[in-house]
Amino acid sequence: MTAPIRLAVIGMGKIANDQHLPAIAANPDFDLVATVSRSGEPVGDLPLFPNIDALIASGPVVDAVALCTPPQVRRAIAATALAQGWHVFLEKPPGATLAEVVTLENAAQAAGASLFASWHSRYAHGVEPARAWLAARTIQRVTVTWREDVRVWHPGQEWIWAAGGFGVFDPGINALSIVTRILPRPFFLEDAVLDVPANRQAPIAARLNFRDDAGVPIAADFDWRQEGPQHWDIVVETDQGILRLADGGATLTLPTGETPTQADGLHGEYPGLYARFAEVIRAGTSDVDVAPLRHVADAFLRGKRETVEPFVE
Amino acid sequence: MTAPIRLAVIGMGKIANDQHLPAIAANPDFDLVATVSRSGEPVGDLPLFPNIDALIASGPVVDAVALCTPPQVRRAIAATALAQGWHVFLEKPPGATLAEVVTLENAAQAAGASLFASWHSRYAHGVEPARAWLAARTIQRVTVTWREDVRVWHPGQEWIWAAGGFGVFDPGINALSIVTRILPRPFFLEDAVLDVPANRQAPIAARLNFRDDAGVPIAADFDWRQEGPQHWDIVVETDQGILRLADGGATLTLPTGETPTQADGLHGEYPGLYARFAEVIRAGTSDVDVAPLRHVADAFLRGKRETVEPFVE
Repeated sequence: MTAPIRLAVIGMGKIANDQHLPAIAANPDFDLVATVSRSGEPVGDLPLFPNIDALIASGPVVDAVALCTPPQVRRAIAATALAQGWHVFLEKPPGATLAEVVTLENAAQAAGASLFASWHSRYAHGVEPARAWLAARTIQRVTVTWREDVRVWHPGQEWIWAAGGFGVFDPGINALSIVTRILPRPFFLEDAVLDVPANRQAPIAARLNFRDDAGVPIAADFDWRQEGPQHWDIVVETDQGILRLADGGATLTLPTGETPTQADGLHGEYPGLYARFAEVIRAGTSDVDVAPLRHVADAFLRGKRETVEPFVE
Repeated sequence: MTAPIRLAVIGMGKIANDQHLPAIAANPDFDLVATVSRSGEPVGDLPLFPNIDALIASGPVVDAVALCTPPQVRRAIAATALAQGWHVFLEKPPGATLAEVVTLENAAQAAGASLFASWHSRYAHGVEPARAWLAARTIQRVTVTWREDVRVWHPGQEWIWAAGGFGVFDPGINALSIVTRILPRPFFLEDAVLDVPANRQAPIAARLNFRDDAGVPIAADFDWRQEGPQHWDIVVETDQGILRLADGGATLTLPTGETPTQADGLHGEYPGLYARFAEVIRAGTSDVDVAPLRHVADAFLRGKRETVEPFVE
């Protein structure tokens, strides 16, 4: 039996409390030894530190950290952790810029530490079986609909509306992380429209048209103004019928009516991520795929901006 | 004596006529066999085709093409050329998006063709000696000033102001192509402000703050509203004095007062590019560095936008 990986979680917001802590508690590969947060309560009787420097100065022995802070401040903390030789789990997105991810990869390699750029939606139950099914089909069209109510899902998250906060691409990048995983070929943005509230920096909605290098059109509709039923759906039209991946990747329906889930289906998103983090640490490797973030950067680079009505929470 | 590379130039705008044609004429490795343009005059008695499909259907035998069209339409033409097995020279930037460059690299590899993402400013006389000098120094601060009058340098170029046209980053990416070449370490954007005219999609000015992974600050000031003297300057403060690279990389001044130029200094920018293009074709390789484009995408992704007065040409 290998010794557990001693882990600290940094950035104790909603995602850390709702998803990371239960997944860590359920995984015997990890031993939670501390949390880091500017405010909030300790977890049980574990020590709480105000920042990573305090953790380094007076904390318990740590092998790895999970970073759940907003993307704008994540790089500096990751660089500090890697300089300690600690393995680093990055919440999505792995950076506020693409270039900083390159420097973190270099730093991880120099330190002999593992860097894991996590994409939680890739570990939803339907994603791997969808990938396997599509590999043997001819794809004709892909339609992505990611429409949710920002007031329900991101209450009070001011950072998400600031420059570098991604706006509707914060959930939209989850869709892109799935699509880049299940489709057999790379694709690129042909045109995009970004709706930006007059009082905000980041878009509240985006309509994106991609194409893969075999000419297959991939359309995405991201919208944060959705009231009533919420949609996180990917529909893939193929020569053998329509594949539907609903509920953010959780529910797969094949044209036959079958609804397969992955063999290790009990994992789910965050348990799956922590299983993978343990795997890359044990193997002495890293897992960094920037493709979803690159598509978002491309959308900001190439997309046409339209000013829409102010968003007041 | 190897046979010359039979070359067609596609997109006969200002850069093709001012820079590409003279460089091709002066290089015995290349034999210009055709041009492609929706309008304009033939070059001498060479055939002129309205588009790449007409060149393929009825043109002379071609080994390679140079693409001088605006970035928004470049990918489709490059993909068509690579599918013919032709080597492709991409004017800067290599794409309107980062993802499309990935697909072009895959296509070049599949076709056994060479792909060259050109950065002409990297071939300015002072760049390589600056790189060599800096490699042995400790860098403390970098300041980039790229201020030019858009009315003088980009008259009537409507595409440059559209979404995907880059605005002031069209010249600014030249500065970034030099800085990414001469500095010894990768760097990343920390914050940026983009000034966007109320009637345009693309910025007319940008102020960028980067940092390298050793903590060195790199500040860039791009501005298209410069009247009077024009500035394309990079100043690097080091432990052994200040290096100045002026005139877009052409003029290097070391702290000693020396002004070295590269050994093959007669090349200049476009002759240097075509010497490099011949080299990668003869070697059966590609040369694609997306770092400058990645920094621009990062600036659009992370930068704060401020609306400024309308730009009327």
